[in-house]
Amino acid sequence: MNLPGEVVIKEVGPRDGLQNEKLLVPTEHKISWINQLSSTGLTYIEFSAFVSPKWIPALADAAAVAKGIDHVQGVTYAALVPNQRGLERALEASVDEVSVFLSASETHNRKNINKSIDETFQVLADVASGAKTAGKTVRGYVSTVFGCPFEGNIKLEEVIRVIESLLEIGISEVSLGDTIGVANPRQVAETLDVLLKRYPSESLALHFHDTGGMALANILVALEMGIKTFDASVGGLGGCPYAPGAAGNVATDDLINMLHAMDIHTGVDAPKLISSARFIQEKLGKKLTSRKLQACQT
Amino acid sequence: MNLPGEVVIKEVGPRDGLQNEKLLVPTEHKISWINQLSSTGLTYIEFSAFVSPKWIPALADAAAVAKGIDHVQGVTYAALVPNQRGLERALEASVDEVSVFLSASETHNRKNINKSIDETFQVLADVASGAKTAGKTVRGYVSTVFGCPFEGNIKLEEVIRVIESLLEIGISEVSLGDTIGVANPRQVAETLDVLLKRYPSESLALHFHDTGGMALANILVALEMGIKTFDASVGGLGGCPYAPGAAGNVATDDLINMLHAMDIHTGVDAPKLISSARFIQEKLGKKLTSRKLQACQT
Repeated sequence: MNLPGEVVIKEVGPRDGLQNEKLLVPTEHKISWINQLSSTGLTYIEFSAFVSPKWIPALADAAAVAKGIDHVQGVTYAALVPNQRGLERALEASVDEVSVFLSASETHNRKNINKSIDETFQVLADVASGAKTAGKTVRGYVSTVFGCPFEGNIKLEEVIRVIESLLEIGISEVSLGDTIGVANPRQVAETLDVLLKRYPSESLALHFHDTGGMALANILVALEMGIKTFDASVGGLGGCPYAPGAAGNVATDDLINMLHAMDIHTGVDAPKLISSARFIQEKLGKKLTSRKLQACQT
Repeated sequence: MNLPGEVVIKEVGPRDGLQNEKLLVPTEHKISWINQLSSTGLTYIEFSAFVSPKWIPALADAAAVAKGIDHVQGVTYAALVPNQRGLERALEASVDEVSVFLSASETHNRKNINKSIDETFQVLADVASGAKTAGKTVRGYVSTVFGCPFEGNIKLEEVIRVIESLLEIGISEVSLGDTIGVANPRQVAETLDVLLKRYPSESLALHFHDTGGMALANILVALEMGIKTFDASVGGLGGCPYAPGAAGNVATDDLINMLHAMDIHTGVDAPKLISSARFIQEKLGKKLTSRKLQACQT
């Protein structure tokens, strides 16, 4: 097997995970949790989103979280930003990196952002420009790359069009999202086969949800094809409010378990990570879905 | 990707799944469930085990189940048999195929069977001989191929020794079990790389438990290397009484979801299979772990 020696995991639980929870986790618990995550060896934590509290009430305290957490050397603290107002708040809060987002599906983009893809780009271009002027790197999420709850299959040329536009506005890394967890290994191989002829593997990350349980199989394929950056969420937290039935992100704990078993270095301490998963599980008062967490509980 | 056009799934839920449940499912519900499984397009169902009720009380009604179920043309109804007494009962019940079992780990074998591996072989040789005299094929399970809860890693030469002995006594297919769900894709690739130089792929099946969530990734690797037969359990039922913390088998519903998404034919009707998973879930009164089942419930 052609596997890399090292992989970067971008922890998105505090943002992508919590944004879907009905229960509002108190700010002090979020801070405590993110500090635990910072101590696991993770080098990237998307800690919140500077979006309107009307859209995502669960993340209304982004500024207070940014202020309260320890900013550990060597860890990038990123936040999602939808527009200029969000960027201003993110810069005030001294984030290390800004993430922008849009969908490869016109319908999903409209449901999620209330704009067409082209209209969204005009906003994102300003955000990216402003962030870079302030000395920040910008990451771009593309949703529904492998399937849309409204449109079904998304043509690869649509995905390429969105990636091109993101790279043009100076995005440093594009994270390709399987928002509803329908990607299969053959599809991942076929998609990457096309994309990696156009873009260097360092410019792409993969972001799998685990609705069908195929996330680790998909990651395996991507690893073999040269992708070395993956988004994940402790305990398998997450979902999508505009994608009914979708499960959470691939669980960071399951991902590092597979990677470490294959002698792939992540720098993450597995027992500390499981502790942090248990912590947020207890605060949410519900069983999270990661296999590793379930196995430890029996 | 080098994937086969067709895969055979051997449904082991009624045996490997139910044997670990504390709740005794009434015989009539088992019969109803197995009849539902027979109507899904599955071609192989291991419906019970003819073991002492003292060992596995949950399967004490094997003979009544064999008598009660519809024997659908084109479906092989198999049962696990540990010894001569079990074989007699299985033959009386007109099973289509007999399964025997032992472990690649001396310690696990002693805990599970109360005999050494060599002593077990003497018993299995008689069972295989008797079954073949009665015109039945014999399948062989090897447990703990990818790791043992007591011994840790099992040397591949130990696995080969057990496979050799099974083939010598006329076993038609050897099912390699990841009893505690610790196999990783690299290990599966390395193991099959050695074994497939010695044995034709048709003589091997793989049997993954999903403790670490890696079962589908492991199956993907095995598919690419030429394996076309996999054991699975509806809803992800299962576990191992002598392997603490182990999860159930890979879920048949998740497996066919991945295979069908990759255009690999199984002959199984997905909605009917999900219905049968819901049926047994309701009878057991607890949430089963398959991703597909969980996604359908939300």
